[in-house]
This record gives sequence, C-alpha cells and structure tokens, in this order.
Amino acid sequence: MTTPLRLGIAGLGTVGTGVVRIVRQKAETLAARAGRPITITAVSARTRDKDRGVNLGDYAWEDDPVALAKRDDVDVFVELMGGSDGPAKAATEAAIAAGKDVVTANKAMLAHHGHALALAAEEAGRVIRFEAAVAGGIPVIKALTEGLAGNDITRVMGVMNGTCNYILTRMQATGQGYNALFEEADKLGYLEADPNLDVGGIDAGHKLALLSSIAFGCQVDFDGVALEGIQDITLDDIRHAADMGYRIKLLGVAQMTGRGLEQRMSPCLVPAKSPIGQLEGGTNMVVLEGDQVEQIVLRGPGAGMGPTASAVMGDVMDIARGFRISTFGQPAAMLKPCAQASSATPARYYLRMSLDDKPGALAKVATLLGEAGISIDRMRQYRHDDATAPVLIVTHKTNRDALDTALTGIRRLDVLAGDPVALRIETV
Amino acid sequence: MTTPLRLGIAGLGTVGTGVVRIVRQKAETLAARAGRPITITAVSARTRDKDRGVNLGDYAWEDDPVALAKRDDVDVFVELMGGSDGPAKAATEAAIAAGKDVVTANKAMLAHHGHALALAAEEAGRVIRFEAAVAGGIPVIKALTEGLAGNDITRVMGVMNGTCNYILTRMQATGQGYNALFEEADKLGYLEADPNLDVGGIDAGHKLALLSSIAFGCQVDFDGVALEGIQDITLDDIRHAADMGYRIKLLGVAQMTGRGLEQRMSPCLVPAKSPIGQLEGGTNMVVLEGDQVEQIVLRGPGAGMGPTASAVMGDVMDIARGFRISTFGQPAAMLKPCAQASSATPARYYLRMSLDDKPGALAKVATLLGEAGISIDRMRQYRHDDATAPVLIVTHKTNRDALDTALTGIRRLDVLAGDPVALRIETV
Repeated sequence: MTTPLRLGIAGLGTVGTGVVRIVRQKAETLAARAGRPITITAVSARTRDKDRGVNLGDYAWEDDPVALAKRDDVDVFVELMGGSDGPAKAATEAAIAAGKDVVTANKAMLAHHGHALALAAEEAGRVIRFEAAVAGGIPVIKALTEGLAGNDITRVMGVMNGTCNYILTRMQATGQGYNALFEEADKLGYLEADPNLDVGGIDAGHKLALLSSIAFGCQVDFDGVALEGIQDITLDDIRHAADMGYRIKLLGVAQMTGRGLEQRMSPCLVPAKSPIGQLEGGTNMVVLEGDQVEQIVLRGPGAGMGPTASAVMGDVMDIARGFRISTFGQPAAMLKPCAQASSATPARYYLRMSLDDKPGALAKVATLLGEAGISIDRMRQYRHDDATAPVLIVTHKTNRDALDTALTGIRRLDVLAGDPVALRIETV
Repeated sequence: MTTPLRLGIAGLGTVGTGVVRIVRQKAETLAARAGRPITITAVSARTRDKDRGVNLGDYAWEDDPVALAKRDDVDVFVELMGGSDGPAKAATEAAIAAGKDVVTANKAMLAHHGHALALAAEEAGRVIRFEAAVAGGIPVIKALTEGLAGNDITRVMGVMNGTCNYILTRMQATGQGYNALFEEADKLGYLEADPNLDVGGIDAGHKLALLSSIAFGCQVDFDGVALEGIQDITLDDIRHAADMGYRIKLLGVAQMTGRGLEQRMSPCLVPAKSPIGQLEGGTNMVVLEGDQVEQIVLRGPGAGMGPTASAVMGDVMDIARGFRISTFGQPAAMLKPCAQASSATPARYYLRMSLDDKPGALAKVATLLGEAGISIDRMRQYRHDDATAPVLIVTHKTNRDALDTALTGIRRLDVLAGDPVALRIETV
C-alpha cells in the first residue's frame, strides 16, 4: 500500500500546528513506519492571516471546516477545533457522511455525542479515533482498547486534568491558598477559556466517561459522572491530609458494581506514597485494572503541543497502517445503556466543618453521624481564636447515601459556620 | 468479518494455560470486541497427561509443535514454549512457511533470531507479534510501535526483570545479603532454570534489544547490549547508595548517540525519589522518551499467568481485528545494522573497592583516577577492623573508557583486595 494518506486538518491552534510540524519534519520516518506517505492536503482555521511558525503554503485553505471535511482529496478529517457542538460536530458529521475517517482530540464532543457519532461512523464503515482526547500524550485509549482487550476491566482511575493537579500540588508545596494558585495557573495560560471546565472537574469528567465506555462496554454517559470540582479545597484540607499521610487529588474512578456503573470525578484523599499520591504538577496518570493484568499504571504529559500532537499522530499512523477498530472497542450498536450508580462503593471519608464555639456543638454532629450508621475513626478539633472551631473527622467505611443523610442533618443544625466539606478516601 | 480466528497453542505452562482459560471463559466478550469468535483448534506440549486445570478435550493434540504450526485449521501459531533455538524456532519457522501469523512470548528467540524471522514473515505476508516478550502485562511494544509512531524516540529505559528487582529491593528492606535473597527467590520459584538469565541480566537484555530495534529502526542486536548482572552487588552498596539518596536497580538504557546505538543493561544508581527508584518488588517499569511526547512511564506486573496471558491476548485480538504491522514497526528490510556504542554517554560513577591497610594505598588509587582525567566528587573510607579498608568513591561525569583505563591500572596495584565495583549513576 503506497498510496499517500491525505489529511485535512481543521483547527490550527497549538495541537494543529504541532501535527503540521510532525508531518512536515518526519515525512521519511512516518512513511517507513506506515508503509505509505502521510500528507496534508487542506487546512482550516478561524484566522488565515496569522504566523503559526509553519509553512502552510502547500495546503489548500478552507474557511469552513465542513467544506474541508467534504473535500475529495481528504482521507482523514483531523478535528482539532474543540467544543462539544457547533463547527466541530457539524464538520465531524459531514466528514463521516462523506466517507472520511476521523481523528479528534475533542473530549467534550465525544463525551456528549460519542455514541451517536460512533453509530454513524460504523454505519458508514469509517473509524473515529481519539487518543489525544484523554490524558494527552499517554497512549491510554490504545492500551485499554487494544492492549488489554483480553481482560474484563475491573476499575479505571485517573488524574487527568493537569491544571487541577498543578494547583493542588502547588498548594502543598508553597503553602499558598487556592485563589492565589488559581491566579497563577491563569497567568501561566493553564486554564481553559471557561475555567470551570478545569477546576469544576468537567474536562476530566469528559475523559473518564470515554474511558468508562471502552472499559465496561457502556454507551458513553457523561451525565452519569458524579462531578465535584476542587474549588472548595482549602490549604487546611491539604495540610490535614498530609498529616495523615494522604494527598488530595482530583481523581476519576470508574467501576462496574452490582448496582450499575459507578463514575466519579472528585477531589479524593489518596495515600501519599502511592503512585497517584506522588504525582506532581501537570503530569497525568491513568491506572487500568483488569482481571488478568492486575494493574497497569501509565504516566505522562497531559497537555502541550508535542504530547498532544504525538497522540493525534498515533491515531493517524494506525489508520495509515490499515488498522480499523470500533470507536469504543466494540461495535457501537452492541454498547449497552448502563444503569448509573455513582455512589455504589462505600469508602472512608474525610469531613471538615467549622462549628460555632457553643457547648454541645460537636456532640450534635457526632450524634447525627451515629444515627446515620457512620462510625468515626478519628476526630480532631483545632485550636482557634475566633468564634468558630475547625473540626476534622475521618469516618470508617460508609455509603455515600448514609453520609449525605447525615450531612443534610448537620446542615440543619444551628451550629455550623459554612458548608461542610466531605472528601472520599480512595483505595488506590 | 465473522470467520473465527483459530489458534494453535504450543506450550501449556503457566502462560499457555492462562491463554486457554481466557479464550474459554471470555468467548462472548472477545467476539464482541474482535467482531469474530476466537477459537482454539489444537494444542501441543511436552507432557500430555498432566492436569492443567483447564479442559483441553475440545482441542486436537499434537506431540510435535512443528506439526501443530503446519495444521490447516490453525490461523495463528501461539508460541509459548520458550528457548532461543530448538523446537520454538523450528515451529515458528514452520508456521511462517505455512502462512500462519505468529504470537510469541519468546524474548530469547527474538533477541537472537528476530531479524531473520521478521524478514521471513514479511516475505510470506505474515506478522509476528510479541507483546508478552517484554515487561509482562505492560502493553509497551504497542505503546512504542503504535502509540508513539509520530515520535523520534530519544531514549528507552526499563526495569524489566522482576526477580532482580525483587532481590535488590528485599536487600534494602530486610538488610539481608545477596546470597540469602537469591535463595529466597529460588524457593519462591522466581528464578529461571538457568538463574544467570535473571541475575546476569540476560533476560532483561533480550527485552532491551527488542525495544531498541523498534525505537531506533535498527536490526535487533542482542550482542550489542553491554550486560552486567547484579551478582556483585553487596548490602554495603545498597546502603551507601541509600545514604546518598539513590537506589540500585538493574536498569536497561538504550539511546542513539553520535557514535552509534548505546544499549546497556546493568545495575545503576538512580535517584530514590524517581519513579524508577521507587519501584518495589517484582513490578516492571518502562520509560519511553520521544521528541514530541517528552516522557511516558509505564508500570505493571512483569510476569505471572494473568498478566502475560493478557499480553498474548492483546496480540491475538489485534490479529483478529485485522491489524497487521511489521514486526519491529517498519519493514524488516528497512531496518539498519546499527553501529554499537555501549559506552558512548558519559556519567557519574559509584566505585567501591577494598584497599589493603597500607600507607599511600588511597593516594595511588586517586592518582590513577586523576591520570585518566576522572575527578572525584566524594570519597569516603569506612572504619574497619580487619586488614582491608572499604573505600567508596563517587566520580564526576566521565567516559566509561576513561574509567576502564583507570580501573585496569588500579587492579594492577598491589593494594587491592578483590575486584573493584563500578556502578553508573543514571539520570532518569
């Protein structure tokens, strides 16, 4: 097979530019590995007149990504625009309808429309590949879908938002609070245009929903992900956790339970000495557990031009080599709509609340926990100078439902200053 | 494509039995993922009458693996016998000649004959897959060959012999010496029939040679791997290293240098806090570095029934899904015979020697190092009660050639009790 594989690239931001660079600079290596040349025939972006540091003169220009997606001289539509709907979705649909394969880095689009797009692609005999959508340069989609295809996957975990991990590890390292480090991350350009995508856990939740679908054969269901962001984590939480030998991470966990598929993306306490606990800065980590393979841990850069373009090129090379695989590892028509059970697995919890300095306040809280069947492993009240006392509680294993019942009762008490914080202590 | 993919399995030890189990127990899942059933038609092993805990009654039996490899009802020959030559090689060659694809876990066979086998397979239009040959359950061949196909690989490193890592980390944890822990590993069944394959670094060297070939487009060249085993590591080395913030690991490193391909498998000092330094027990870790992806770290079980069978099944599933790729990532005919330069990259070294307690002994050693252009970062002579004094030296960066010159001179001095030990301090 020596026919060139012809790419049409929509979106020339960091990642798109990175892909153009690789295709231009490594033509010979890529051709040797793929057994055929990889070429670019056309590109599209919002702004044409912008110096991107690469020569685009050899390629046809399309203002409209939908027009790009339909071009006769494009074999693979490379979607690097982003956004769950709008032009990205329209152009992806047009590409599939026009008989093109699709490579995309768009987690939001796939988390919301992945099932419908996979059905359409498979009906048209086309593939959608999305390695770059999850955990940047780490080839985790490939490991899960292909490398571990002989396993029943038992659990998938991941730290998949580098910005959140940057903020949390910097809080630990510098002793600065959340707000100061949010500002720092913003100045460094680490935050999405809508920062809630990062710190609210949405971006990482999109990624988890994609991994869940492959791992458990379920239709991708982002709405089934129980999402909590890192906005309420204080420096005190970080310090208390460290005192007990833990780190706080925005951790995604997906597992199949007797009650359904459990998908959670939330700040959790994990042992400081575990691989996840030791993960610093913007690096991503994904843990894959299967009945045969036990546990595989993958670690690498979660973002950036090179790593993300590397993932896009991995998909392009697979297509060039003639590898065709169902979007989520099995035909989309066979994926089940899975019941969602976001709080099925019991866990120990870390609770932090501020109690008014009144006699009996702590007793009232303890009573409500006891009534909900939650026993307390440790409780500590800190010294304080003002009218409220910070109280820290670590529970024994409990169901989230029981905890929510207790927290509802505790909120109704007249002894609480501010909302209590409850963080799961995850076994990793 | 709904024709079943028919396996013939040669070798029914732990891994072979594990593969049979997966194929029997997960028929439905595998068929859904592959788009076609995976079946076993025939098996072969040295002993027929042995309870392996799985029902083999449905499969044809062949005493001779070569006969198995040639059967008309076998599509994929699964070679799990082991051994670089003999029946494994004969049967693999027969399978290729008979037009079968091959899946193997046989690192020794591929390290010695991989290039010839790859040429033969590609001439016959067949594939050889060997995920299980390197780092057990970790899908590292896949990550390197496919996921990172858009990269120029700059360095590959790995701790890929679980037995050695077990012995070294147990020395650190228990304070027992090498010999005691070698015995312990033997009792636990962790050692190969020829233990030198493990502790001599040969098994891990085979794996490194396979990774090098893919990473750098070179013909696999096991003889080019500079091999050192862990047999001379003492408890003192482990302790000295720990005092300085290091751990000792049997570490493989491959990188392309201006002088040629550098391939080393030897005990090295690595920072205790690095991912490799923190790796405990029988777990494996591979670090892949590329110009685009920066650094990917993969960690998982390096051996055992489930993990190794998982890797075999990953390859089987790829073949079932119609994925066909050159053995070492590009056509074997395009792989270059690369010049070998096992000691091209300079490094700091840890030296340990026992000097006779005579005036001027240390001065003579220091002089010889100086004459070879090696400057000393730290030197320490320990308190001692007998006639020889243990001396520990950490050098500044030096070439291995210069170090060897100095060591040759030092060995000629009349002040040395026993052979000096030199361990590279690796930047990881």
